[in-house]
Amino acid sequence: MKGYRIAIIGATGMVGRTILKVLEERDFPIGELFLLASERSEGKTLTFKGKEYIVERLTENSFDKGLDIALFSAGGDTSRKFAPIAAAKGVVVVDNSSAWRMEKDIPLVVPEVNPGDVKKHKGIIANPNCSTIQAVVALKPLQDRYGIERVVFSTYQAVSGSGYKGVKDLNDGLLGKGPALYPHPIVNNCLPHIDIFLDNDYTREEMKMIDETRKILGDEKLRITATTVRVPVEKSHSESMNVELKKPFKTEALKELLANSPGIKLLDDPCSNLYPLATVAADTDLVYVGRVRRDESIDSGINLWVVADNVRKGAATNAVQIAELVITQDSK
Amino acid sequence: MKGYRIAIIGATGMVGRTILKVLEERDFPIGELFLLASERSEGKTLTFKGKEYIVERLTENSFDKGLDIALFSAGGDTSRKFAPIAAAKGVVVVDNSSAWRMEKDIPLVVPEVNPGDVKKHKGIIANPNCSTIQAVVALKPLQDRYGIERVVFSTYQAVSGSGYKGVKDLNDGLLGKGPALYPHPIVNNCLPHIDIFLDNDYTREEMKMIDETRKILGDEKLRITATTVRVPVEKSHSESMNVELKKPFKTEALKELLANSPGIKLLDDPCSNLYPLATVAADTDLVYVGRVRRDESIDSGINLWVVADNVRKGAATNAVQIAELVITQDSK
Repeated sequence: MKGYRIAIIGATGMVGRTILKVLEERDFPIGELFLLASERSEGKTLTFKGKEYIVERLTENSFDKGLDIALFSAGGDTSRKFAPIAAAKGVVVVDNSSAWRMEKDIPLVVPEVNPGDVKKHKGIIANPNCSTIQAVVALKPLQDRYGIERVVFSTYQAVSGSGYKGVKDLNDGLLGKGPALYPHPIVNNCLPHIDIFLDNDYTREEMKMIDETRKILGDEKLRITATTVRVPVEKSHSESMNVELKKPFKTEALKELLANSPGIKLLDDPCSNLYPLATVAADTDLVYVGRVRRDESIDSGINLWVVADNVRKGAATNAVQIAELVITQDSK
Repeated sequence: MKGYRIAIIGATGMVGRTILKVLEERDFPIGELFLLASERSEGKTLTFKGKEYIVERLTENSFDKGLDIALFSAGGDTSRKFAPIAAAKGVVVVDNSSAWRMEKDIPLVVPEVNPGDVKKHKGIIANPNCSTIQAVVALKPLQDRYGIERVVFSTYQAVSGSGYKGVKDLNDGLLGKGPALYPHPIVNNCLPHIDIFLDNDYTREEMKMIDETRKILGDEKLRITATTVRVPVEKSHSESMNVELKKPFKTEALKELLANSPGIKLLDDPCSNLYPLATVAADTDLVYVGRVRRDESIDSGINLWVVADNVRKGAATNAVQIAELVITQDSK
């Protein structure tokens, strides 16, 4: 098996470190590994498969090493500047930032949902927003079988979605300190404010969920609204999803469909208090679905509770899965 | 002004103590005050306006004292047994449990919404569920002006909704102890499970929101669905509400309507990170509304974020407001 030359950009961040871990867990065929980050992290060491790697500083020349794939997770500005440089040098970029997601010619991929879109890339493949990834994994089988008319999202998002600074705000808050990252204390609050506010009074996180879900599901007109909320939970996003389907359904058949769909674990047995929980999803790669109930207020409505580890399936694991699709293509 | 003979049943619980506090704050015209509770709390002392009161044990004879009003907050079983006894003796019962709420002849009252229903009582007036109270305060002006077609609720409910035991589970959990009340740890989790599960796989809390909202708004066919979730927050419930209105609206006019409606404080200025927060609502009596945004996925849709102190406006304050309506009637 070929060993690929892989770079992680933003290797010392929470998602970067998790990408490293996931590459190791999944035994990704790596020939040579390069860890890149900003000047601030230059010289730090990280361990991969028992070997220490020194973090190098990202420069425009970082991609002159015959790299095959670069996994970017260093924020939008870095991606906007360096992803095109990498792509121009023949490197396939899997980008975890929001910089390229909505560009028409750039595929936005969740491997369980639209793996075929990977083939369309011209050097950059975008990794979707965390809250969107777990949502579309749950929605895709419903779309295929019943068609989706409309979705109402309300999210319960973990502080790890803001990286180490978010986790620090929660932990500091529990010690009585004020927040450094969030505009208000996250302890004892649910903040209906993720990312910046836009002109339409939605947050950018809310518009990401709307726009990215449409793009990934390939339905530009899909009717969606979203309220995204940060909660005092360390790991895993939970989502309350109200879905109006086009065709009638039987609840048991719909549950069976979800249980047999890729990437999903159905946890739904109210009698034994079994439903998806953030602590159960944490440190795993699955999307957990439960609380599946018919919404009697419309003809073909269903309520779902969907939970996944936002740093793994919502970011690092999904990026590595995309890289796996890239090399599968390559070997064909 | 007449001084009324008032009893609090379940005086030592979280809601009971808050009722006592609210009666004092609002200078309710009390002639004589009786604090009643189960055998377990007999002999405890509570302070009201600087004077100590000894908690007496609740018995069938507790209502033979020429009481005017009894505020019950001692759970469904106590209410089912003792409220009819009190009512038969001419005492007006304001009952905070769910025992009588959906009984056809028993008014279910939120003073900002359906104060007139108080007059219809035959001895018992029911105080609604906490999550319902704040929801209908926000919905009522929209119903009156635009008509309501459908509502999708997703809640973020504080542990104080489970009384002292809920707060203890959160605090113990933060110290690393397992839960005693909740079926799963509340620390680092959002539990999509409040009250028991019913045959239709909804929780009783979810069905309370649906059924009680319909009854209070006087629209038995109102289309509603709900997902109710316990979050690791001590005080105040937050609610994401997606509302489909019957008539078209202008967002600014709708906001102005909410700002000028009884019991509501509009907190909605994204530019200054102003939106309702649990810590802001805590220990107050208002229902805070914000994140008011048009839902573009339907013709006349609006998203709201609604927060209130569940123990005060969601229980104790609403009960005292009902008692105030009772004595206003009495004095007419």
